[in-house]
Amino acid sequence: MVNPLEQDHVQVETVDADELREAWSVLAREDRFEGFRLLPRVEAEDFFMSLTALDQAEILLQLPIDQRRSWIRMLPPDDVADLIQEVPLEERDAILAALDVVTRKEVTALLLYAEDEAGGLMSPRYARVRPEMTADEAIRYLRRQVREHPETIYYAYALDADQKPIGVLSLRELFMAPPDTRVGEIMQTELVLASDDLDQEALSRLFRDSDLVAIPVVDDDGKMKGIVTSDDILDVVQEEATEDMQKYGGVEALDAPYLNTGFLSMIRKRAGWLVVLFVGEMLTASAMGYFEHEIARAVVLALFIPLIISSGGNTGSQASTLVIRAMALGEVRMSDWWRVLRREIGAGLTLGAILGLIGFVRILVWPTRDTLYGEHYLLIAMTVSASLMFVVLWGALSGSMLPILLKRVGFDPASASAPFVATLVDVSGIVIYFTFASLFLRGTLL
Amino acid sequence: MVNPLEQDHVQVETVDADELREAWSVLAREDRFEGFRLLPRVEAEDFFMSLTALDQAEILLQLPIDQRRSWIRMLPPDDVADLIQEVPLEERDAILAALDVVTRKEVTALLLYAEDEAGGLMSPRYARVRPEMTADEAIRYLRRQVREHPETIYYAYALDADQKPIGVLSLRELFMAPPDTRVGEIMQTELVLASDDLDQEALSRLFRDSDLVAIPVVDDDGKMKGIVTSDDILDVVQEEATEDMQKYGGVEALDAPYLNTGFLSMIRKRAGWLVVLFVGEMLTASAMGYFEHEIARAVVLALFIPLIISSGGNTGSQASTLVIRAMALGEVRMSDWWRVLRREIGAGLTLGAILGLIGFVRILVWPTRDTLYGEHYLLIAMTVSASLMFVVLWGALSGSMLPILLKRVGFDPASASAPFVATLVDVSGIVIYFTFASLFLRGTLL
Repeated sequence: MVNPLEQDHVQVETVDADELREAWSVLAREDRFEGFRLLPRVEAEDFFMSLTALDQAEILLQLPIDQRRSWIRMLPPDDVADLIQEVPLEERDAILAALDVVTRKEVTALLLYAEDEAGGLMSPRYARVRPEMTADEAIRYLRRQVREHPETIYYAYALDADQKPIGVLSLRELFMAPPDTRVGEIMQTELVLASDDLDQEALSRLFRDSDLVAIPVVDDDGKMKGIVTSDDILDVVQEEATEDMQKYGGVEALDAPYLNTGFLSMIRKRAGWLVVLFVGEMLTASAMGYFEHEIARAVVLALFIPLIISSGGNTGSQASTLVIRAMALGEVRMSDWWRVLRREIGAGLTLGAILGLIGFVRILVWPTRDTLYGEHYLLIAMTVSASLMFVVLWGALSGSMLPILLKRVGFDPASASAPFVATLVDVSGIVIYFTFASLFLRGTLL
Repeated sequence: MVNPLEQDHVQVETVDADELREAWSVLAREDRFEGFRLLPRVEAEDFFMSLTALDQAEILLQLPIDQRRSWIRMLPPDDVADLIQEVPLEERDAILAALDVVTRKEVTALLLYAEDEAGGLMSPRYARVRPEMTADEAIRYLRRQVREHPETIYYAYALDADQKPIGVLSLRELFMAPPDTRVGEIMQTELVLASDDLDQEALSRLFRDSDLVAIPVVDDDGKMKGIVTSDDILDVVQEEATEDMQKYGGVEALDAPYLNTGFLSMIRKRAGWLVVLFVGEMLTASAMGYFEHEIARAVVLALFIPLIISSGGNTGSQASTLVIRAMALGEVRMSDWWRVLRREIGAGLTLGAILGLIGFVRILVWPTRDTLYGEHYLLIAMTVSASLMFVVLWGALSGSMLPILLKRVGFDPASASAPFVATLVDVSGIVIYFTFASLFLRGTLL
């Protein structure tokens, strides 16, 4: 028996998890299944339970059919449903057949739901009581249920004759109550419920706002179908944040850890956006081609192009990251677009003025000012600084409005990635810059 | 009594939460306290409990001293500790004084921990049993504990005489056991423990890997100090993802919802990075100034500058977002730098070849090729396409290595933001481009 009392042990535990993960990620590049078979049964079971549905499915499919049953039966129905969704269609029936009758029925019901809605995340096993029971009866009743369906229980739900939830009480409340109190007297009747088609993002907000450990899921008729627990939501939240971050960086979501993603699949997920952005950015060459004669007459103008367009791109990245994240957290909704716009007009003008001023001073105080910029350095400084102000304002506006616009037409706001916004602002920045140049320099440099 | 059975009610519940949040965000811009006082006591209590520690503190400080006690005493000790950390130093003692003696002691102990480590996140109240108790005795014993310290219980922990945890069992296991079994026989002795100074990121990984709802926290001597529950970690995970995303977009973390952040504070958090990047990007003007004569002789070269440097920046954003997120999830560690480097060399070369090829073809097939690029269009195409390959490779390498490097010297990897990487690649991209230009075009265009 391991002695968990030593401080050493605390560290060993953590290292163990790390080492297992390390071993697994090594296995990922070798033959996973061989590595798995080398583990003793108990370690293999712990390991199997800790894997994602995708990895569990991969292992299961490599086992001979007669050995699959004991593995699949270790999983609760919601995890089995997740696993089956990772398995090729022709293998699904064989896996369903390995389940006991009750679980098979539950899993089949779960498979009807999309993976990313409340119904697809819920467990159909929860603790139920009846309002007319006494606290003592309810505890005895729960003990029996729990013996049949070994799932963790957080709350006990009181259902009416139609299977509709009418109250909830925590085990704590049940324990605290005098033994002969009726459940109906102590249960809370104001329930937080999730409909089975509630999207997982909305569900995670419901958890955040309610601070509950479990939320019951009901169908269209209000009948209770299961519960979603906060540890299931933890995975969802991490997954969504990863997807959003990757999209925002201009990559299609990888759906697997970086080091475990196949090289070709990673190239595909990156090349797509990169080529789209490249084609978009070609417009900068066209735009500059249009101003070729201006550049030939005043080469000095070309020097500031990267500075001006990148400042717009940077401001755009800032604005889009703030709005995308605020939308993901539900802090900003589409109807807030006007408030966001007003804020970003203010922010864009202020930030533009700051950068414009620095740019202006930079040109005026540059040591080689006269040889580099010639006699019209003041006009050049004005052109650069006015362009900076407008490009920064434009960056703030497009960066903040693009996510809202994308959502409006049904896309993921996170697709308004930093590179996307930068490309948009680059092209328009060049036009803005040369417009100011012809305004200020016509007759002198141009 | 509300009837929660109607489907309507399900929606009403959700809308209620939304409406409350909406009301609150309106209050945020008006006088919050007035709005709060208008609520009936029960609604006000629900509302108070659902607020963040910062908002709770704000309300509490506006209440007369004699009214504070009943509000502060509604909160469990870990929430009180969070609230106190949001309060000015001179007000803290008054709030501590409003607590009962036991809670005050617990809160004072919690305040010694940093907010972002296990000790600062834990609740000191958990269910404990002794290994020699029978299941029946343990259940009775838990009922008594729970009556005194009304906190939710998930697991019961068996402690030895030194307060060190030696086993854990879920209520489910306790319920399932024959009444006269000893706790010591049914408890699990392989514990997942967190030391009290464990960082919250590592703690959230421990939750993810172990799939537990609660993890016990121990001090340096292995004594049990409290438990952290997965719903506390849910907030942490969201918060960290928000911070990372904002940093990655080139903004200092806002620490408050976008629409509730004061205008000046938001400008400060954005202007800092923007100015740093602007000053860095000025190097592009200097680099181009260095090649001014080349540009004057072959203006056509200037046309491709934005295209080339932005392609490097986009590839860099992709690489850095993948590595930053993988590091935050613990999938990539510093020691993996060599594996990441090898991957990104491959990815950079492949992506560079794709973009280089598109760029090459683009110049060759352009309708106005001969007037725009002149007789040396083939040499120009070679220059552009070779530069693209190298700049994209350089973007992939710097984007992937920068987060690892930043972590190595003690910074947050997420500071390797999209704008930061883009700026770095812009400056070096110009140098790479003009180096290839003198290589290929010396003697013809240059």
